[in-house]
Amino acid sequence: MAELIEVKLAELGITLPRPAPPIATYVPYVVTGDLVVISGQLPLLDGKLLVTGKLGGTVALEAGQQAAQRCFINLLAQLKAACGGDLDRVRKVVRLGGYIACTPEFTRHAEVMNGASDLAVAVFGEVGRHARTTVGVPALPLDAAVEVEGMFEIL
Amino acid sequence: MAELIEVKLAELGITLPRPAPPIATYVPYVVTGDLVVISGQLPLLDGKLLVTGKLGGTVALEAGQQAAQRCFINLLAQLKAACGGDLDRVRKVVRLGGYIACTPEFTRHAEVMNGASDLAVAVFGEVGRHARTTVGVPALPLDAAVEVEGMFEIL
Amino acid sequence: MAELIEVKLAELGITLPRPAPPIATYVPYVVTGDLVVISGQLPLLDGKLLVTGKLGGTVALEAGQQAAQRCFINLLAQLKAACGGDLDRVRKVVRLGGYIACTPEFTRHAEVMNGASDLAVAVFGEVGRHARTTVGVPALPLDAAVEVEGMFEIL
Repeated sequence: MAELIEVKLAELGITLPRPAPPIATYVPYVVTGDLVVISGQLPLLDGKLLVTGKLGGTVALEAGQQAAQRCFINLLAQLKAACGGDLDRVRKVVRLGGYIACTPEFTRHAEVMNGASDLAVAVFGEVGRHARTTVGVPALPLDAAVEVEGMFEIL
Repeated sequence: MAELIEVKLAELGITLPRPAPPIATYVPYVVTGDLVVISGQLPLLDGKLLVTGKLGGTVALEAGQQAAQRCFINLLAQLKAACGGDLDRVRKVVRLGGYIACTPEFTRHAEVMNGASDLAVAVFGEVGRHARTTVGVPALPLDAAVEVEGMFEIL
Repeated sequence: MAELIEVKLAELGITLPRPAPPIATYVPYVVTGDLVVISGQLPLLDGKLLVTGKLGGTVALEAGQQAAQRCFINLLAQLKAACGGDLDRVRKVVRLGGYIACTPEFTRHAEVMNGASDLAVAVFGEVGRHARTTVGVPALPLDAAVEVEGMFEIL
């Protein structure tokens, strides 16, 4: 049988990167029971941050959305590793946590985070519909504009 | 048998709102095993934010506490939906995460968040006693003063 | 049989404090299934905050790392209580969440949080390798420099 999620990723033109190693002394994910808990991912592409700076400052809304989307692609790469390479084992996207680096005046965090959430639904369909918490932060590691963590249920 | 939690809510004078739809492309809650993971709730009342701005700035401590309380009421509305309408299925309030929009000088986050925590214990008694993380943030979606997410165990 | 983790703590010269009571109306931890969810811990030592202020401001990197380490020691004290006194029941450090009080210019959050992560691995070895989310915040309760929450799997 075709690998359904891999086919969907190809349709969306998404190539998963090699899962990024953590930038510190932790691991990218832990499996507990049927839950996969994945470390906060930065918008890294080919080892470089795609978007740095703050929303409401030098980072435009669209760039923030692209950063959130990239974070979710990096979550997917880790999730695939956690599934032993088979993303069809994913039963639910349980929760995404979105941290948006921003100025104190910024209020459009939800729209930024939609870059990740919309992609979750595009890739996984109904089981991609997730609980979500989105907040602003004054600064993120390495000056990243967005960080997204995730919890997933797998078979 | 009486619905115990509904009776308690009535005693406390609390009317649960229709659960607020998310303001973006995600869902209010996901059930995984016997855990209900609920999206971060804003202090919405009748579709409008009850309290906007920042603690340590234009928002007084008491207003922040009311905002946290309203966030918890909104969590309850989602939790009731997750329980198919029967809040007596709730076994534990596992964790609340409180995000307090504030100035860099503010230090009374715990007191603000007690608006949510005290209500959890008032409604659920011993099983309402929860783990909690409370932090400050520079800004929240739509300029909300407080956001609270929750994890619950149900039968 | 020797209590392996207690022996390791002694080797590391770590004395666990009496678990700190929460500074508000919640509890230090909740057990759900085989997960222990522990409230955000501040860098308290003998009832006083070890480090206050902000990274990138008055708090040096090393002081921040010591604060993170102290938060993890306080998590361990709560975890031991959750295990009925037997830390050898710990099967996995599932996730640590690190909140670093900082100026908007600060970018070395990961290095600060390593104070907690390195200790997790020093104490628990392979099962101490955890998923992690680290973000900056403008302010924490009581002006603490760091707050760390944790999720653990136990037997």
